[in-house]
Amino acid sequence: MNKLINRIEIPVRFSENDPMGVVWHGNYIKYFEDGREAFGLQYNISYMDYFNNSILAPIVKIYCDYKRSLRFGDTAVIETEYEYSESAKLIFNYKIFDKKSELLCASGRTIQVFTDIKGNLILTHPEFFEKWKVTWGFPGSRYND
Amino acid sequence: MNKLINRIEIPVRFSENDPMGVVWHGNYIKYFEDGREAFGLQYNISYMDYFNNSILAPIVKIYCDYKRSLRFGDTAVIETEYEYSESAKLIFNYKIFDKKSELLCASGRTIQVFTDIKGNLILTHPEFFEKWKVTWGFPGSRYND
Amino acid sequence: MNKLINRIEIPVRFSENDPMGVVWHGNYIKYFEDGREAFGLQYNISYMDYFNNSILAPIVKIYCDYKRSLRFGDTAVIETEYEYSESAKLIFNYKIFDKKSELLCASGRTIQVFTDIKGNLILTHPEFFEKWKVTWGFPGSRYND
Amino acid sequence: MNKLINRIEIPVRFSENDPMGVVWHGNYIKYFEDGREAFGLQYNISYMDYFNNSILAPIVKIYCDYKRSLRFGDTAVIETEYEYSESAKLIFNYKIFDKKSELLCASGRTIQVFTDIKGNLILTHPEFFEKWKVTWGFPGSRYND
Repeated sequence: MNKLINRIEIPVRFSENDPMGVVWHGNYIKYFEDGREAFGLQYNISYMDYFNNSILAPIVKIYCDYKRSLRFGDTAVIETEYEYSESAKLIFNYKIFDKKSELLCASGRTIQVFTDIKGNLILTHPEFFEKWKVTWGFPGSRYND
Repeated sequence: MNKLINRIEIPVRFSENDPMGVVWHGNYIKYFEDGREAFGLQYNISYMDYFNNSILAPIVKIYCDYKRSLRFGDTAVIETEYEYSESAKLIFNYKIFDKKSELLCASGRTIQVFTDIKGNLILTHPEFFEKWKVTWGFPGSRYND
Repeated sequence: MNKLINRIEIPVRFSENDPMGVVWHGNYIKYFEDGREAFGLQYNISYMDYFNNSILAPIVKIYCDYKRSLRFGDTAVIETEYEYSESAKLIFNYKIFDKKSELLCASGRTIQVFTDIKGNLILTHPEFFEKWKVTWGFPGSRYND
Repeated sequence: MNKLINRIEIPVRFSENDPMGVVWHGNYIKYFEDGREAFGLQYNISYMDYFNNSILAPIVKIYCDYKRSLRFGDTAVIETEYEYSESAKLIFNYKIFDKKSELLCASGRTIQVFTDIKGNLILTHPEFFEKWKVTWGFPGSRYND
């Protein structure tokens, strides 16, 4: 199956570091969002595309596995990969590397669902998302037939 | 003239500290907001009160003067004082103390204006704000007569 | 086995909300830290206790499951529970409730390991942590005999 | 006198926006830091250069004047300019523009002093900073003669 991956570089900010001198663990969640937004811009599936379709895509699960610290002065390389799912969910897997050493610093995963503007869960597949999947070479959902 | 002051205690969070081991300077802006929100709850002039009157109160100027560092383990005491102004502005002055030593760590000031929901500046005094001033013993504005 | 739980209330800050009008998902990681710090103060196992023993306890895994949104005006109730483990790890489970409705908004889990000041992993159980476990009614580790 | 200016572009992050749908005012302080760090990298006067000289440069005053909102989807252009001062201070002035419209969104100013590693104020001009000023065409300080 097709592999859609975005790669973006984020220099670590001074204010993202904690008193241990390393990036505070909560900031990796922001790096995931940076990766997801860059992915969205590259593959036309950003927050703006949801908005324009009156759809929200809130995160319902997040997971992060920390391997190695990033520090001020480092540049994070964020790899965001779309994971195909038959259900009405948006799944991304992330890998964060230290640019210089190329070592893996963290990996993670987010799961998003679709809701309408009022926050009601959409169980069928939104039409624009079906089109998006087909455009990028993934099977459309049979549940919507 | 009347003095309206709110005092609130905020324990310093680990994640608010930077690699120097002290609270990152940008987080004092968040402490000011904590103070302003606590003030609003005490004196009935919070974001919610603006919303209910279809008014926004964006900050247009902020100033902070840093005297002494706060650290993880310290508790910040935030004093927020309303400053009366004849113009259609909301002005607050802040003092942040270290609870234990009672020493002044920072002082600051914010100025807010009023806009409608679309962000257009309101030059006259919003009615609910006029009432609020009178309720708390300040002169109403003569400009609205 | 003994159950150690801390419960703390955190009013949602305006700046913690995103353009959807709900708490940005990354801020729950900060709420977990608020819970962990409050737990540490209540049960004498805070960052400061590590420091004093020349030990760090970096987070190596984090997980969050989002059920329901919190909003500005809400108060989060954070329940942090210690999970006993025979290995040299510190595990906490979290539940975040909306104070008013008492509904569960999120649950999560963090896993911490112990390192020395230079960041080298400590595989045996730090002595102060062994004592801590015994003090609170948990079995000490047999690995350190 | 010489003008040293750095210009950097920062795409606005989703998580930097507040429930009003605009960048939360406190995040401009982070943008100033982004500008200052980019300036430091371009002109060799970054946090790392201080560290290597056992010097810290904490911020003692910050000021921000908000003109126009930035939103998710916008790109902030941050201009950071060094302001020469005879005293042992580091002064920067900032302008933040919206990239597309080229309109000014905010301007600001930070003042930093020099301290040793323990946080004691250094009243004379640190040698590396004197050299830096001369290197970039500014007069050295007469106070150190």
